[in-house]
Amino acid sequence: MASEEKTTANSLWGGRFAVGPAEIMEKINASIDFDKILYAQDIRGSKAHCRMLMAQNIISAKDGEQILTGLDQVKAEIEAGNFTYDAKLEDIHMHVESRLTEIIGEAAGRLHTARSRNDQVATDFKLWVRDAMDQMDLALKALQTTLVAKAEKNADVILPGFTHLQSAQPVTFGHHLLAYFEMFTRDRDRLRDARGRLNECPLGAAALAGTSFPIDRFLVADDLKFRKPTANSLDSVSDRDFALEFLSIAAICATHVSRLAEEIVLWSSAQFNFIALSDKFTTGSSIMPQKRNPDAAELCRAKVGRIIGALNSLLVVMKGLPLAYSKDMQEDKEATFDAANAFALIIAAMTGMIDDMTVNEDSMTASTQNGFITATDLADWLVRVLNMPFRRAHHVTGTLVALAEDKGCDLDGLTLAEMQGVEPEITQDVFTVLTVESSVASRTSFGGTAPDQVRAQVKAAQKRIE
Amino acid sequence: MASEEKTTANSLWGGRFAVGPAEIMEKINASIDFDKILYAQDIRGSKAHCRMLMAQNIISAKDGEQILTGLDQVKAEIEAGNFTYDAKLEDIHMHVESRLTEIIGEAAGRLHTARSRNDQVATDFKLWVRDAMDQMDLALKALQTTLVAKAEKNADVILPGFTHLQSAQPVTFGHHLLAYFEMFTRDRDRLRDARGRLNECPLGAAALAGTSFPIDRFLVADDLKFRKPTANSLDSVSDRDFALEFLSIAAICATHVSRLAEEIVLWSSAQFNFIALSDKFTTGSSIMPQKRNPDAAELCRAKVGRIIGALNSLLVVMKGLPLAYSKDMQEDKEATFDAANAFALIIAAMTGMIDDMTVNEDSMTASTQNGFITATDLADWLVRVLNMPFRRAHHVTGTLVALAEDKGCDLDGLTLAEMQGVEPEITQDVFTVLTVESSVASRTSFGGTAPDQVRAQVKAAQKRIE
Amino acid sequence: MASEEKTTANSLWGGRFAVGPAEIMEKINASIDFDKILYAQDIRGSKAHCRMLMAQNIISAKDGEQILTGLDQVKAEIEAGNFTYDAKLEDIHMHVESRLTEIIGEAAGRLHTARSRNDQVATDFKLWVRDAMDQMDLALKALQTTLVAKAEKNADVILPGFTHLQSAQPVTFGHHLLAYFEMFTRDRDRLRDARGRLNECPLGAAALAGTSFPIDRFLVADDLKFRKPTANSLDSVSDRDFALEFLSIAAICATHVSRLAEEIVLWSSAQFNFIALSDKFTTGSSIMPQKRNPDAAELCRAKVGRIIGALNSLLVVMKGLPLAYSKDMQEDKEATFDAANAFALIIAAMTGMIDDMTVNEDSMTASTQNGFITATDLADWLVRVLNMPFRRAHHVTGTLVALAEDKGCDLDGLTLAEMQGVEPEITQDVFTVLTVESSVASRTSFGGTAPDQVRAQVKAAQKRIE
Amino acid sequence: MASEEKTTANSLWGGRFAVGPAEIMEKINASIDFDKILYAQDIRGSKAHCRMLMAQNIISAKDGEQILTGLDQVKAEIEAGNFTYDAKLEDIHMHVESRLTEIIGEAAGRLHTARSRNDQVATDFKLWVRDAMDQMDLALKALQTTLVAKAEKNADVILPGFTHLQSAQPVTFGHHLLAYFEMFTRDRDRLRDARGRLNECPLGAAALAGTSFPIDRFLVADDLKFRKPTANSLDSVSDRDFALEFLSIAAICATHVSRLAEEIVLWSSAQFNFIALSDKFTTGSSIMPQKRNPDAAELCRAKVGRIIGALNSLLVVMKGLPLAYSKDMQEDKEATFDAANAFALIIAAMTGMIDDMTVNEDSMTASTQNGFITATDLADWLVRVLNMPFRRAHHVTGTLVALAEDKGCDLDGLTLAEMQGVEPEITQDVFTVLTVESSVASRTSFGGTAPDQVRAQVKAAQKRIE
Repeated sequence: MASEEKTTANSLWGGRFAVGPAEIMEKINASIDFDKILYAQDIRGSKAHCRMLMAQNIISAKDGEQILTGLDQVKAEIEAGNFTYDAKLEDIHMHVESRLTEIIGEAAGRLHTARSRNDQVATDFKLWVRDAMDQMDLALKALQTTLVAKAEKNADVILPGFTHLQSAQPVTFGHHLLAYFEMFTRDRDRLRDARGRLNECPLGAAALAGTSFPIDRFLVADDLKFRKPTANSLDSVSDRDFALEFLSIAAICATHVSRLAEEIVLWSSAQFNFIALSDKFTTGSSIMPQKRNPDAAELCRAKVGRIIGALNSLLVVMKGLPLAYSKDMQEDKEATFDAANAFALIIAAMTGMIDDMTVNEDSMTASTQNGFITATDLADWLVRVLNMPFRRAHHVTGTLVALAEDKGCDLDGLTLAEMQGVEPEITQDVFTVLTVESSVASRTSFGGTAPDQVRAQVKAAQKRIE
Repeated sequence: MASEEKTTANSLWGGRFAVGPAEIMEKINASIDFDKILYAQDIRGSKAHCRMLMAQNIISAKDGEQILTGLDQVKAEIEAGNFTYDAKLEDIHMHVESRLTEIIGEAAGRLHTARSRNDQVATDFKLWVRDAMDQMDLALKALQTTLVAKAEKNADVILPGFTHLQSAQPVTFGHHLLAYFEMFTRDRDRLRDARGRLNECPLGAAALAGTSFPIDRFLVADDLKFRKPTANSLDSVSDRDFALEFLSIAAICATHVSRLAEEIVLWSSAQFNFIALSDKFTTGSSIMPQKRNPDAAELCRAKVGRIIGALNSLLVVMKGLPLAYSKDMQEDKEATFDAANAFALIIAAMTGMIDDMTVNEDSMTASTQNGFITATDLADWLVRVLNMPFRRAHHVTGTLVALAEDKGCDLDGLTLAEMQGVEPEITQDVFTVLTVESSVASRTSFGGTAPDQVRAQVKAAQKRIE
Repeated sequence: MASEEKTTANSLWGGRFAVGPAEIMEKINASIDFDKILYAQDIRGSKAHCRMLMAQNIISAKDGEQILTGLDQVKAEIEAGNFTYDAKLEDIHMHVESRLTEIIGEAAGRLHTARSRNDQVATDFKLWVRDAMDQMDLALKALQTTLVAKAEKNADVILPGFTHLQSAQPVTFGHHLLAYFEMFTRDRDRLRDARGRLNECPLGAAALAGTSFPIDRFLVADDLKFRKPTANSLDSVSDRDFALEFLSIAAICATHVSRLAEEIVLWSSAQFNFIALSDKFTTGSSIMPQKRNPDAAELCRAKVGRIIGALNSLLVVMKGLPLAYSKDMQEDKEATFDAANAFALIIAAMTGMIDDMTVNEDSMTASTQNGFITATDLADWLVRVLNMPFRRAHHVTGTLVALAEDKGCDLDGLTLAEMQGVEPEITQDVFTVLTVESSVASRTSFGGTAPDQVRAQVKAAQKRIE
Repeated sequence: MASEEKTTANSLWGGRFAVGPAEIMEKINASIDFDKILYAQDIRGSKAHCRMLMAQNIISAKDGEQILTGLDQVKAEIEAGNFTYDAKLEDIHMHVESRLTEIIGEAAGRLHTARSRNDQVATDFKLWVRDAMDQMDLALKALQTTLVAKAEKNADVILPGFTHLQSAQPVTFGHHLLAYFEMFTRDRDRLRDARGRLNECPLGAAALAGTSFPIDRFLVADDLKFRKPTANSLDSVSDRDFALEFLSIAAICATHVSRLAEEIVLWSSAQFNFIALSDKFTTGSSIMPQKRNPDAAELCRAKVGRIIGALNSLLVVMKGLPLAYSKDMQEDKEATFDAANAFALIIAAMTGMIDDMTVNEDSMTASTQNGFITATDLADWLVRVLNMPFRRAHHVTGTLVALAEDKGCDLDGLTLAEMQGVEPEITQDVFTVLTVESSVASRTSFGGTAPDQVRAQVKAAQKRIE
């Protein structure tokens, strides 16, 4: 993509078809443009392989030391920006080996003993995905910490709880935020499980069949902090489950982010006005200074599309491929890199937005002051105090709501007499359950919205974050 | 769908637009056509809820007993086929409660105390998905058992190992089959992890905010064999992660199945002729009796599309939904039921095909007799015995292969003298590594293709299956 | 699915693995459960084929007449519900032929001369999709008619035009609805183009290679109202582009529906309160009679997931299939039928909702009374009247908005003196552009929101609908 | 992505969370990294807008000329590589305007009169997609030309026609290639239709409501070679149908490419050996010189995943977005650019491979010499000559095939007497239909595989290409 961006669309497209087969082949085949970000993993893997070859006397200590030193130099050059990439050398693996040969000479040729590009690339990519998982776990932890802090601060703030985007029952804003804590907890659990599953080392599977050299795969696995070597060499080079699983976790997590982002967009609208984002996460308009477009939230909502697309893409690539390695699998990386990038961005942006938001308490609470939002509390009182079957309590409540609607008041605007006209056994005590404050306070069941419950959940969450 | 199938396309489509709004609303809104398969889970959940209400003295023992007995009767009627469904009653939950009311009268109205349809449906659906996970685990176990048995029997059978569908190195068929054992092991691991994550009970979250009744959610969770109750009531009713995770596991597993299915189609072709399927899993043609179309394998390959589609579908549905429950989420069930059905079918069919296949050993091994398939062994010998750097060994091997190609023979058709013309230090010993038998026998690295390794892996696999 | 629905989940899953291979094969292979809805297309195609065979003297007039009469009888039996389906007979094609044989005897065997199931199923499915396209065109036309009528009625009703869900500029509700008219116009155009492309008859391609019988494919094409026969027999039996294109059109159209559905959900919320849906398209709650959950809109929003899933599913199925027919392609039908069904439902439901909605004019217009929504009009005035460059006009406007914000008024609450303090050349004339009424009235550019433009667009739309 | 590629994975991830909100916002919000490829379209659109403003006397001729000259200079600087990009300026539109201001001063501020970034970006993106469509049409035309030339050359070459990857009936290779000609013809038709639909100019819709300036949208549309201006300003800025339609066309076309790619992979295998690709489109292995890995074909097969992913991604992004513009829509570009790039690559690579391939005629034809591949011809002969009903002819043929199978010969290895033992009326004439040559020659029905038909189809195709 890089080179094309510098050309006009016409020369881009036109150029493509003017070039000869060799150029087309190079364009479709070379992966160095995107797999160069694997350099650190590639060198780390090669060093572990080298140390094992030395330990097993497959290569000499002298050759081995040269290789190790040379690889460090290659890494330093890359990190210093003094490294030349060339599509002719196809991928990062060939770039590293080629430069190593320039530096240390023929001994470099011993590094590839008892391995192949197939197990090498599987190892590098696994190491990268494992790193990404670790970083995403940290990012999600930061998001959770921010959510819990905000929840604690808003444990008493009441807003309408919605179903179907219609007011249903009052809830606390702290409780609402903790719902997302639960989602991100499951996401982190999924990452942890997937990491454990990924954590078997493919190096030593060689091209596809294993090797006749007396290698010690457990040594390499240990060096690279894998739990153990993979158990089947064909599977080792043809497996991309770890990327698929990472992408599916990212996709599920991104749906959570998209839901929270949708809420932020809604809450920021003039019509809801539940929160305000600062300039940090909004863009303005040069004429309408009151306008704070919640761009970051909208982009967080949108990027779920990109991540679902990446997951979908890799599932399609893997469909129907015979064993062992097929070149199709080179399409695994860009999808994964791009999705990981989007994943990291939305978690970071969401963490920032949650931290940044100003909660308009008054506006939230004002929104609960209509819509007979405590009707369920009334019904529950009828059941609890008058021992009505719930279905009949519903019916009585419905009648009372209709009465209030006619009268143009909320439920607590009815007189006791009016209520008794519908159900003679109702007593003055009923009014104690009709305020939104008493409603939320009463929902003390485990996981309920009562402020005390919320504070208890906050405490538990603070522990669970670790 | 059911009713439409009986009509012509014209009346189907035309009819739809002739009907009034009420009918359209009923068609788009009612879920009884598909959610009736949840009846067992619904009744199980209601009974657990009822027992808890009794234990907490929220309803009387007498009412409770009536409810429990009544629910058993409803279940019996459904299973006996004596149950009338009616789209007016929308869903299975209303059907069960409505019938219970007919049977036991007003006490039925007490069952819905301290719960709502939102937490009820979440519970029912979780129970169903949990059952599906358990059954898929069993199904995969059966497939693994079949694969391992076949692998054991074919631990010595040699065929070409492919990369890019080009012969690369000889492998054993047992080894090839065990690669799939590894994949299905990861699938089962994923199911187990997902099951653990799913296993929190949403019942008691009520509509979205919890309840003021003194319920004991731990008791219900225990009764339904959930690990514990969910920690946030808003999350409880708006979470469908468990279905998304089940679908993503199914999708990844289905890519494995599609790969094996692709191989079965290839292997069954006249051009490969590696295996034969019997009539059991093929269809014939009334004119070409030799034709055994591998229909079951093709359908196994195709159904990955359906399962990916279902995953994709539910991810899209969940995108951007504000909390808590939205009616959009009713679209969770058909996707999940359909994918679970396809998942079960392909695992069962694949198990049958693996068991059924006849292995054409001669044809497999004959396929290894060209293509210089032991060239890697020659290169490895040069490294191991002559201590060449691998990259130079590659070069020497390439020259020898070109020589053999010119001479029209395989590598072991060259004379020692011819070889020494290229590399003087080569000795007679080199011929010991040039047969496919010695090649596979030499790949004894952990996870390698050597028959002894394969047999060791079979042993390990038999243990790991449990 | 049907039979499973009657069993418990346990017996469903357990049962599947207890059965023998024959049963698994039948379950995975038979398509009669879903392809029976093709019966009318199948019989129509067979009659056309038969008439051609008669015309070409490939079969005798006598045999032909028997076949035609017999097929009519089969159709009548199916439509009367007197037809027995049996998974042993696999699909609708075999069901029809088998019953025809029972009715007319050996002559039935002549019907299959010069055709195969491959071209037959392609023809039947094309006919079905073509019918579906025609019906969807009618459905979209009805939706457009409803939108245009509503737009005409609301050509003067002003509401905030949103970008980023933030008030941007006032627009008319009629104008807003007409945006959807444009989208559905493109959808109908797509359907028309796709129909033209589909409209080539595959019958006569036989199994894959054509036939040696002297058939007249143009005659059959004409009889079935296809534009012409397909030009390549291999393509004829392996092409499913028409289904993919139908699904992609449905998916794009469903995104339009999802956007309108999202708006209906928003507009129905207490916070927006722009419209009210009646009971016809909402569901209530037994306790909160004020609650009108916009279920139909939510389901319309959700079903885009299902349709995208179906498109995705069939793309995956078709990926990488070698020519000509593979059994994988049997997966084309359920995805298409299900998506077509969802497509029809959402268009019908949306038509009903648009027709049904009550527009809360006052509430819409009240929502425009803050947010400096006419700031762009002020800037445009500065450019037009004072000849400022637009970028400077923006800056001046920004200063005036900040002034108004400080003063706690809207732009027309500033005095001329206050304005002149910022920009001395401003005159009294500026106040003529600061009301929402003058703002919308001024947007007379082609396609703009001015009521007169809207009425002109309504007129044009009424013509374009045809 | 660009900057990240230069850092280690650790600093990439770690860095992201160390940065402050401003940096996160910039990273998620800025689009200049990818939308800079729109520069030519952006400048073209601005010039057209400027000319119209001049023509309508909205800006002076002098200002207009300065703007036009300045824009040409900006374009020249970009194309010369002398242009500095800065994420602070967000996107290409601001970059161009900002540089224009530097060059010509305040007059630059008049360019944005009567337009907004919303209609500007819609216009630019449409122009880009229209260019991409035009280029893809040319690319597909080149592929068709190559296919037709290859088909003409191979009109007589016989290979097995497959269904279910099992030999079914002999076909000609020219005929097989022409099947793909048909698919790509439909793809080009779809592009043409989509181009026509896209071809309405959004410029003048302004932010969302139109404008009060006396613009002439027809003039601008004409200048930019659009058919006419869009009819609704809200739709103009919120529509991305043209990108979705382009992506769906690309996805369908990519399934065609994936099928041909799969066949090339199969045909190149040692087991099929139907074709050979040269070094140009394969990669070798340093040890196995015989190995020609069909990498380009595998990548062509895989990239359908990427394109389906992009389509899926944008459908998800658009789902449920309220009107008019939302920032989510910024996610439209990368998906489209990436898919267009992949689309162009696979068409070019496929064109090269078709041109490059060596057809192994002998190997193809040898593959037809078993499998009773002319059994259908025998059955047809029984129908045609003996007037048997087809179903009985099938049965007789089946018996004869079984006889030949027992005898170990193909059908033409049976004696007339042996045949007459099954069906006495068979005559010597039957042997004329049992060779593969006579079989293909007989399939003269329109679109059939007979060489003469193929040549006629080639002629027709050559005309249809234009």
